[in-house]
Amino acid sequence: MALFYRDEYERRLALVRKRMEAAGVEVLVACDPANMNYLTGYDGWSFYVPQCVVVAGDAEKPIWIGRKMDVNGARHTTWIGEDNIIGYPEDYVQSPVKHPMNVVGEEIRRRGWGGRSVGVEMDAYYFTARSFVELQKTLPDARMVNADLLVNWVRLVKSDAEIALMKEAGRIAEQVMKTAIDRLEPGVRECDAVADVYRAQMAGTPQFGGDYPSIVPMMPTGEKTSAPHLTWTDAPYEDEQMVNLELAACRHRYHCPMARTAYLGKNPPEKLVSLAEHTVAGLDLTLAAIEPGMRCEQVEEIWRQHIAKAGLEKESRIGYAMGLNYPPDWGEHTASLRPGDKTVLAPNMTFHMILGMWMDDYGFECSESFRVTETGCATFADFPRKLFVKG
Amino acid sequence: MALFYRDEYERRLALVRKRMEAAGVEVLVACDPANMNYLTGYDGWSFYVPQCVVVAGDAEKPIWIGRKMDVNGARHTTWIGEDNIIGYPEDYVQSPVKHPMNVVGEEIRRRGWGGRSVGVEMDAYYFTARSFVELQKTLPDARMVNADLLVNWVRLVKSDAEIALMKEAGRIAEQVMKTAIDRLEPGVRECDAVADVYRAQMAGTPQFGGDYPSIVPMMPTGEKTSAPHLTWTDAPYEDEQMVNLELAACRHRYHCPMARTAYLGKNPPEKLVSLAEHTVAGLDLTLAAIEPGMRCEQVEEIWRQHIAKAGLEKESRIGYAMGLNYPPDWGEHTASLRPGDKTVLAPNMTFHMILGMWMDDYGFECSESFRVTETGCATFADFPRKLFVKG
Repeated sequence: MALFYRDEYERRLALVRKRMEAAGVEVLVACDPANMNYLTGYDGWSFYVPQCVVVAGDAEKPIWIGRKMDVNGARHTTWIGEDNIIGYPEDYVQSPVKHPMNVVGEEIRRRGWGGRSVGVEMDAYYFTARSFVELQKTLPDARMVNADLLVNWVRLVKSDAEIALMKEAGRIAEQVMKTAIDRLEPGVRECDAVADVYRAQMAGTPQFGGDYPSIVPMMPTGEKTSAPHLTWTDAPYEDEQMVNLELAACRHRYHCPMARTAYLGKNPPEKLVSLAEHTVAGLDLTLAAIEPGMRCEQVEEIWRQHIAKAGLEKESRIGYAMGLNYPPDWGEHTASLRPGDKTVLAPNMTFHMILGMWMDDYGFECSESFRVTETGCATFADFPRKLFVKG
Repeated sequence: MALFYRDEYERRLALVRKRMEAAGVEVLVACDPANMNYLTGYDGWSFYVPQCVVVAGDAEKPIWIGRKMDVNGARHTTWIGEDNIIGYPEDYVQSPVKHPMNVVGEEIRRRGWGGRSVGVEMDAYYFTARSFVELQKTLPDARMVNADLLVNWVRLVKSDAEIALMKEAGRIAEQVMKTAIDRLEPGVRECDAVADVYRAQMAGTPQFGGDYPSIVPMMPTGEKTSAPHLTWTDAPYEDEQMVNLELAACRHRYHCPMARTAYLGKNPPEKLVSLAEHTVAGLDLTLAAIEPGMRCEQVEEIWRQHIAKAGLEKESRIGYAMGLNYPPDWGEHTASLRPGDKTVLAPNMTFHMILGMWMDDYGFECSESFRVTETGCATFADFPRKLFVKG
């Protein structure tokens, strides 16, 4: 059984069809696992083999095509019914001569859609170069159209049912961050602190459990704070050092990321304390200014003007749309809080605003996941915004 | 500093160059994160943006090209030196008009290699359709060659330094499986059991910590055992039910997967007990038969003949090469223990042999990760092979 009621999926599908029409896409082949989930409910760790959901303008329901071994998983998790679940045989898996996208193309032809315009997600993680070539080969009469992010843009505005899950993720995120900060001590190995963070992510709360976030916990310290995507080691945390905490919680694939900074030791440098105060004040006032009708770039401008007063600047974007996702990223790759982004904020759009200020030898970051409301915005988690000093 | 000594990387590079020559590839663009790590040492959770390692026949060292933000991560983890680390600016990230593969193509041209044959990994997870199109666009004079799995085939035979890490992963895997079996009880929520498994994966041993495995823990029970890639829920485990445990441990990105089956309750069905005995006997005798010089298909045949005596058969492959990897898969996509695979076993090839026997309403699975030795094979972990009955 799919996670949401059927009308939720039908509403999503109607919105996707509208965008397909505007983009001249008659048949959509969605390989992004989050888009597959969004349209059908399908949820499984099977995206390491090619799979997709096909949406045609005149077919009532989407079609799931995946490995035969995963057909039962599709039956368990989708709303689309037996006729729309198609498994390809085992000899298509990792074969140099056959490819699952041949099966997809043949199914599209079998349904009489082989001469149509076919939308593909050109930059989706699991739509490889070979997937594209093989699909084209099996559909010589189709016109290929780039439909990258077509479904993602529909995902930007969440339903109330989705928001409810993100609020649950927010409750778990509070536990995750509390666990991390409690556990951090000089002498504790990085891997042991990360181990407890993972446990908190999955154990969730007594009322509901957690799901795996799309990105692993990041808790760098020392000189590695300048290399944002290095993961942990088994070295112990040291005294009088900063630790960046980029963590998240997930509930049924819906995320609530959260970043904080901790200082291990009694004597945080004055410049770090001051940077933390500026940054938190900026986060507070930028969140307070958000309201529906604003453009994404305007949100960023409020922040930029604030830090300019302190003689600071930040190069990269300060936030991005997020929600439903699979590894390797929880971001939706649509709206960003950055100069030039004209997306107009609307209720139930959801973002992660992350303010990371990096100087030569120190830095501070603090973030909030939030949804736009009818009148402003509301964060998913409730956790102090400050520099955590563990002296 | 890279994980291994420089001569290890130089040896790998020499083997890759030899294969490049045989395949007519003058410049290799490797986007598979495991191949990037293998050639340079690079290790970071940055594969959610396009990045690659470029190897040219006449350049001394590989070139890392990634996001500017990750240049420090490359400095920290690679052996290739400042001149060979190239960062692309932030405005190439998730842009509809620019793409990081344009930077890669331009760098190849800048070095005078624009007219050469360029090998690309057509079916690598993070080499998207758009990556391919953009690279071609920037290299109009290059001849594109499919170099899929070229580096993976070199990875098949491990060095002693790699084997040492896989042995450490084996020690962690023992702890992980013990934790899972200890924790499984009727009434315990699936998410809580998974939470403790994750903790054991990362905490490792007192001597060395764990890294994140490329696949999440799978611990399905009840009717979900027939849907192998569904993840956990927050429902409690029930009495008198089977649980499949497909777990792993990882050390510096080197894996040791391990599968076992547990029965919660006092009365495992006789047919399950009998299936477990057959399967374990088959695993024992198949491992005992392995020696260098055999072909992969011969290993599978030994198993197949064994279960045929009990009137059983198994459709899919019984094992695959594995080792260094990143999500979404720890398999190397090269040699498989299956009919038709003529790969000749050689010392230090490493495999996961997984025997899963699925009947209509019950099943049993048991696996071992092993390396081929000079005289036979040796498993990485030491854990009882049996049905675990928790009565």
